[in-house]
Amino acid sequence: MKIGDKASLSRKVTEADIEECAKLTQDQNPLHVDETFAKEHRFGKRIAHGVLSLGLISAVLGNKLPGPGTIILNMDLKFMAPVFIDDVITAEVEVVGIKEEKGIITLRTECRNQNKTELISGIIIVLHKA
Amino acid sequence: MKIGDKASLSRKVTEADIEECAKLTQDQNPLHVDETFAKEHRFGKRIAHGVLSLGLISAVLGNKLPGPGTIILNMDLKFMAPVFIDDVITAEVEVVGIKEEKGIITLRTECRNQNKTELISGIIIVLHKA
Repeated sequence: MKIGDKASLSRKVTEADIEECAKLTQDQNPLHVDETFAKEHRFGKRIAHGVLSLGLISAVLGNKLPGPGTIILNMDLKFMAPVFIDDVITAEVEVVGIKEEKGIITLRTECRNQNKTELISGIIIVLHKA
Repeated sequence: MKIGDKASLSRKVTEADIEECAKLTQDQNPLHVDETFAKEHRFGKRIAHGVLSLGLISAVLGNKLPGPGTIILNMDLKFMAPVFIDDVITAEVEVVGIKEEKGIITLRTECRNQNKTELISGIIIVLHKA
């Protein structure tokens, strides 16, 4: 692994995913699960749980880079735009720092939708012993 | 709402929750899903996805405080200890800042397990128009 290494994963977020996420996390915020409430709110329709995007970032970290055995130590993330039903989101991570002796790796991360709109941006620090 | 207001939610994290989370997020990190791999790793057994704890924090924000309509803008979180199968985690949030005209609320958050071990600690900034 070296500075500048990148990895990404994409997924579509379906209505069923939002229902499942609400059930799994107990997050029943009506912005996510109530079309009538969401219609009156700033976005005009239901939005996905941020946790689904965070889960995709976590999947890139745990499956790809740094890969199996990765443990998240720190996340500092900005949420810039919402995810709507059937949006396709792509989570990317890029290695920006390596403390090899401690196995601590700093990654820049961002999520974008199918229109390249930035959804999430920030820094995640992980532990990953080679 | 005022500075110092608090809310919390608790849940048990079961093996089924971890399986479901792996499916929902695509995060197949063997620390979460592979007992043999996890046994050789620093914790000696499988740990839950951090996303499950983040989901519980999000549930407190979206269901209770500030409540329905809450949108996360920013999270800066430290992960201090792992969650094991059948641990009971409690996520608490406390209002530490309110910009009333903009509807921006800053909350301190922490998650602890049944032994009061601190799992996650940090600050979340949300948008919530009264």
